[in-house]
Amino acid sequence: MSTDLSGLLRPRSVAVIGASGRRGTIGAEILHNLLHAGFNGPVYPVNPTAIAVQSVRAWPDVRAIPDPVDLAVIVVPQPQVLGVVDACLEKGIKGLLVITAGFKEVGPEGAALELEMARRVRAAGARMVGPNCLGIVTTDPETRLDATFAPTFPPEGTVSVASQSGALGVAMLDYARELNIGIRDFVSMGNKADVSGNDLLSWWSNDPHTQVILLYLESFGNPRRFRDLAAAVSLCKPIVAVKSGRSARGLVAASSHTGSLAGADAAVQALVEDTGILRVDTVDELFDMAAFLAHQPIPRGRRVAILTNAGGPGILATDACEALGLVVTDLPGPVTEELRSFLPPAASVRNPVDMIASATPAQFTRAIRALLGCEAVDALIVLFVPPITTDAEAVGLAIAAGAAGMDKPVISCFMGRHGVPEALSRLQAAHIPSYAFPESAVRVLAGAARYGEWRARAPGVAVTPSGMDMTAACAALAAAVPDASGWLAPGDVAKVLGAIGVRLPEAVVAESVGEAATAARRMGFPVVLKLVAEGVVHKTDVGGVRVDLRNEGDVFAAWEEIAAALDAHGLAGAMRGGLVQPMIDGGVETIVGVTRDPTYGPLVMFGLGGVQVELLRDVKFRLAPLTDRSVHELVRGIRGYPLLDGWRGAPPADVPALEDLLARVGALADACPTLAELDLNPVKVMGVGQGCVAIDARIRVA
Amino acid sequence: MSTDLSGLLRPRSVAVIGASGRRGTIGAEILHNLLHAGFNGPVYPVNPTAIAVQSVRAWPDVRAIPDPVDLAVIVVPQPQVLGVVDACLEKGIKGLLVITAGFKEVGPEGAALELEMARRVRAAGARMVGPNCLGIVTTDPETRLDATFAPTFPPEGTVSVASQSGALGVAMLDYARELNIGIRDFVSMGNKADVSGNDLLSWWSNDPHTQVILLYLESFGNPRRFRDLAAAVSLCKPIVAVKSGRSARGLVAASSHTGSLAGADAAVQALVEDTGILRVDTVDELFDMAAFLAHQPIPRGRRVAILTNAGGPGILATDACEALGLVVTDLPGPVTEELRSFLPPAASVRNPVDMIASATPAQFTRAIRALLGCEAVDALIVLFVPPITTDAEAVGLAIAAGAAGMDKPVISCFMGRHGVPEALSRLQAAHIPSYAFPESAVRVLAGAARYGEWRARAPGVAVTPSGMDMTAACAALAAAVPDASGWLAPGDVAKVLGAIGVRLPEAVVAESVGEAATAARRMGFPVVLKLVAEGVVHKTDVGGVRVDLRNEGDVFAAWEEIAAALDAHGLAGAMRGGLVQPMIDGGVETIVGVTRDPTYGPLVMFGLGGVQVELLRDVKFRLAPLTDRSVHELVRGIRGYPLLDGWRGAPPADVPALEDLLARVGALADACPTLAELDLNPVKVMGVGQGCVAIDARIRVA
Repeated sequence: MSTDLSGLLRPRSVAVIGASGRRGTIGAEILHNLLHAGFNGPVYPVNPTAIAVQSVRAWPDVRAIPDPVDLAVIVVPQPQVLGVVDACLEKGIKGLLVITAGFKEVGPEGAALELEMARRVRAAGARMVGPNCLGIVTTDPETRLDATFAPTFPPEGTVSVASQSGALGVAMLDYARELNIGIRDFVSMGNKADVSGNDLLSWWSNDPHTQVILLYLESFGNPRRFRDLAAAVSLCKPIVAVKSGRSARGLVAASSHTGSLAGADAAVQALVEDTGILRVDTVDELFDMAAFLAHQPIPRGRRVAILTNAGGPGILATDACEALGLVVTDLPGPVTEELRSFLPPAASVRNPVDMIASATPAQFTRAIRALLGCEAVDALIVLFVPPITTDAEAVGLAIAAGAAGMDKPVISCFMGRHGVPEALSRLQAAHIPSYAFPESAVRVLAGAARYGEWRARAPGVAVTPSGMDMTAACAALAAAVPDASGWLAPGDVAKVLGAIGVRLPEAVVAESVGEAATAARRMGFPVVLKLVAEGVVHKTDVGGVRVDLRNEGDVFAAWEEIAAALDAHGLAGAMRGGLVQPMIDGGVETIVGVTRDPTYGPLVMFGLGGVQVELLRDVKFRLAPLTDRSVHELVRGIRGYPLLDGWRGAPPADVPALEDLLARVGALADACPTLAELDLNPVKVMGVGQGCVAIDARIRVA
Repeated sequence: MSTDLSGLLRPRSVAVIGASGRRGTIGAEILHNLLHAGFNGPVYPVNPTAIAVQSVRAWPDVRAIPDPVDLAVIVVPQPQVLGVVDACLEKGIKGLLVITAGFKEVGPEGAALELEMARRVRAAGARMVGPNCLGIVTTDPETRLDATFAPTFPPEGTVSVASQSGALGVAMLDYARELNIGIRDFVSMGNKADVSGNDLLSWWSNDPHTQVILLYLESFGNPRRFRDLAAAVSLCKPIVAVKSGRSARGLVAASSHTGSLAGADAAVQALVEDTGILRVDTVDELFDMAAFLAHQPIPRGRRVAILTNAGGPGILATDACEALGLVVTDLPGPVTEELRSFLPPAASVRNPVDMIASATPAQFTRAIRALLGCEAVDALIVLFVPPITTDAEAVGLAIAAGAAGMDKPVISCFMGRHGVPEALSRLQAAHIPSYAFPESAVRVLAGAARYGEWRARAPGVAVTPSGMDMTAACAALAAAVPDASGWLAPGDVAKVLGAIGVRLPEAVVAESVGEAATAARRMGFPVVLKLVAEGVVHKTDVGGVRVDLRNEGDVFAAWEEIAAALDAHGLAGAMRGGLVQPMIDGGVETIVGVTRDPTYGPLVMFGLGGVQVELLRDVKFRLAPLTDRSVHELVRGIRGYPLLDGWRGAPPADVPALEDLLARVGALADACPTLAELDLNPVKVMGVGQGCVAIDARIRVA
């Protein structure tokens, strides 16, 4: 498959098959847009009956065009599309853009046709965008292509956009024009029968004029490839994405703790965290981020200075910084003294710096230079409320002058609208983005800081703990005889885990209370007694676990209690016996698990143990296989992490051992595709150097 | 103090003291605005030297005006303000609007002057807005007052606005014009020396033309009165508020668990939850809410139908609904059949209903009527992406036609901008608000649904549990001898709590391990042993608590362990003895506490116990005194509430007993102003009918 998209994105000639002269039809609008955007080459209308379309010489068939054609835009009715594709391939065209709808999105027949079309395109060494899409735009001055039926051609710039929704694509092109955000390439991907988001990421990573990549995605065709690609691209260019479809219920019904804790969005979020992608919730946040990233450097840290000419917006910005993890830093003495030297007494020279309503353009410039020159400041937020006596345009120029040549990001907020637009456009020419309210500016800056931190960390490398025999583990999985729901017997679970170097505590299944007492005496008190019963998934729910049994009397009493509790749950007679284990005292209770997403593959989960935390859902997911970095972030990503790190005088826990355990579990999940679900619950993380112990383990195959 | 603000908000004549003819000065802009907004009465410029200002006959002194004056707008330099105020009061003017700055905001001298000014105004039976403010606007056609120096006069409508920031006020007036949101009254409150947000709330609650109240607040002068007032007003009119200043560190350094868990925003949030106020984060959300509330009915429930002509936006809206707690409801068979009868086969008639790009205006109208007519639908979201072949304005009209006469809220989103403005303004005339992206529309609808639920619940009534002797409790507090930090001795704590009917378990302080063992034997095993030591605040942090001691040998070992742990913390010798208590087995561990905010008064906290939950901060606060409703919401407001409600097979806990305990603690905090902090930690909530037990209690006075 060719990775060269230049036939689609940098064509030197275009044919429009289905071109029409009747304005208001798609075939007419596309031709009109191509002609009026100033395409840098010939446009050939193809129409079986007309001699000219929109005053341009037309051809009855694409094969009749006497010159070479790079890009074919196909707008004919659905039943004619396959024939036209064949004609284009025969003509040797390498780029096909199929606007026509009525394929995969309408049913299996359309899907089959689409598949066949993609097969023929690829066999001919060509590439196709669509079907069912809005089209392609490029502002590259060598090309200037508007092969869409959208009403707006965007300004030229460095932001490339891929949208899986044509409807949102129209809105995006309008929005780019409205906010004056410069676009490089825009591709409406439609059904993604051939060219996918991954192809575009690759292409744009090699396009020196693309500095920011925006994605609107509803699905991933190949999530694993997307992850690797996006992580690599993010190291040099920021990617901002709206991934919708969170509500789509992608996971099969899960019976493990891990599965039930994985919401529909867990896999997408896990993928995003591996890639450095800036994920935003809405299309306006997408463009808010783009306006900043296209023009400003990434902040080197989270320390922010706020400069304002009014108190209220300064407070709003300060609040927003605190809420989003930016630090409104204390300014050093020399900086406050410098500010004091030229600001009036009523001004506040502490951060946020409030120059009050009398602030002049010259004061803006001078304050900006003082703040950007300060070592303790990583980024500057400038807030301006146009008071009656100050010229907003002059302030815009003054802000640009202050920021000129300084190597730190500056972001602004011109409150209100009156008199602002000219000043704003002045700012945009000077590449300082402005937002209507302080909170939007802060949100953008916080996102950029997060991205900067992601990029500054060392990329992850695969972890392969020693002493894992994956062949043996997979063989043990294959040889096990699961129950009707796919769950393995405890002995088989121990075999699988043993092969990857995860040991469980000694466990004896006793069929009678006498056997249980004998086993307990042999292994030493205190012990734990757990119910063994067919069809009971969560033993604690039916009172099936009794801990800290210190003598044989305790064991007898516990057996009776479990039987009585089962009875109370209407399960009398289900008890097959009891599992006796030594009681492991101390340690922090955690849970480690695996669930499998049908699209994204195995997900490894980590969280704190205990019903409380399950209720509070303080868990994190990452996609297998894990890297050293993802293991590190998995453990530290939960809110309860301080409990493992010497919380309130407790000894720190053996986090390296926990990370090693997670790496083993991740490797198992990656290597054995039949492993559907795994719960290690609880995993007790002991003190430093004392390892961690999986007290209970369950594995389901499918 | 007069509660009549008509001199300020409905004046029949206005004097501008400090009026100027030099455009660009505040004294000129205010006069200009007054004259050009079409004020419905005479405007008298007051200027010591000019015969006419802006072509209007001027007077050298306000007292020289021959006619009665209702409102004086004061724009003179700060040193002259007090003299002018005296002159106005002498003239008998009842409404004073002081624009001039330089009072409380610049230091103690200004504050004293401001106080004196307010005293004189009130003594004369007048009212004053300001000083240091932007001014007052009313669009009431009988008045039409623009006594501000802002450049924009807003459209007429039903939304009244109070802003504590003049700068944001300018932005709000611009924004109202830009979004075409009709304003009734606008007041920039400035320093709030006299007229406060509370006064305005009272006034607007009695103004039949005000339907929505917007507040931008930085502080509350009298939070308790605000709470009572806002709760009463919210029952008939929605109040939407931005309360900034969250980062302001209002709380004194706290040494209790409760105090340390109360962030700077806890008191504000507690207040908001008692009032039904819709709290939003940003000024644009404020106006987004206003556009809806001013024109649409409050939804009766959370069941939403989504109607769209493009798939992508439908997915975005569905995601947003799920994230914000709205239900994209299943449509009943008759409704889907009705939709199917006139929509093309490629359309999706399940919710979200996607009519695809070919949707005609007539189809919009018919689908809207079908969806609004459906009993399972509480509200409708209409999304429209203008495709090339459909006239956006016609769709706007079609939506309005569909919604006409139906008694359910309709909210719309016209994606993109091209060709939309006319259709949008058409919609606004029809009172259907539109937003640029689906998420904003959903956020607004979710807020309105939350407000509807708040309003539908019964208002809270005071709870006074029986058997509280508050006189005895306060006397015990007063008689106690606290340590240097204000903490009471255990005996005194028991006395205070006993007086309000909260009993602690038996506790014996033992000075030696022998005494401890004897006490344990007497009270019966198992017992708990806790460190008694000077200067140790959190006993668990230094290993000072040992539980489940089952015999005398356990007590001896525990005593040694505690001593050794103290030693390891460098506190050898600090041990004064041990506290022996019976071990209370079972129950759900919770924490109940009180902390006191210097502005808001006592806050009662409830949360789950245990270090994990403290780490996860799953706690809720409410202001004392508590009502039955606030107690109910306090208990159910934490994420961990299901643990008290029969979580995973456990027996439900005695929630009524817990609510009774909270009410007692709230009453104590309200009655005894010297109570600074209180921790009941843990409180074990036993099974239904078995009450709850405060295991440990600490009280600090100040």
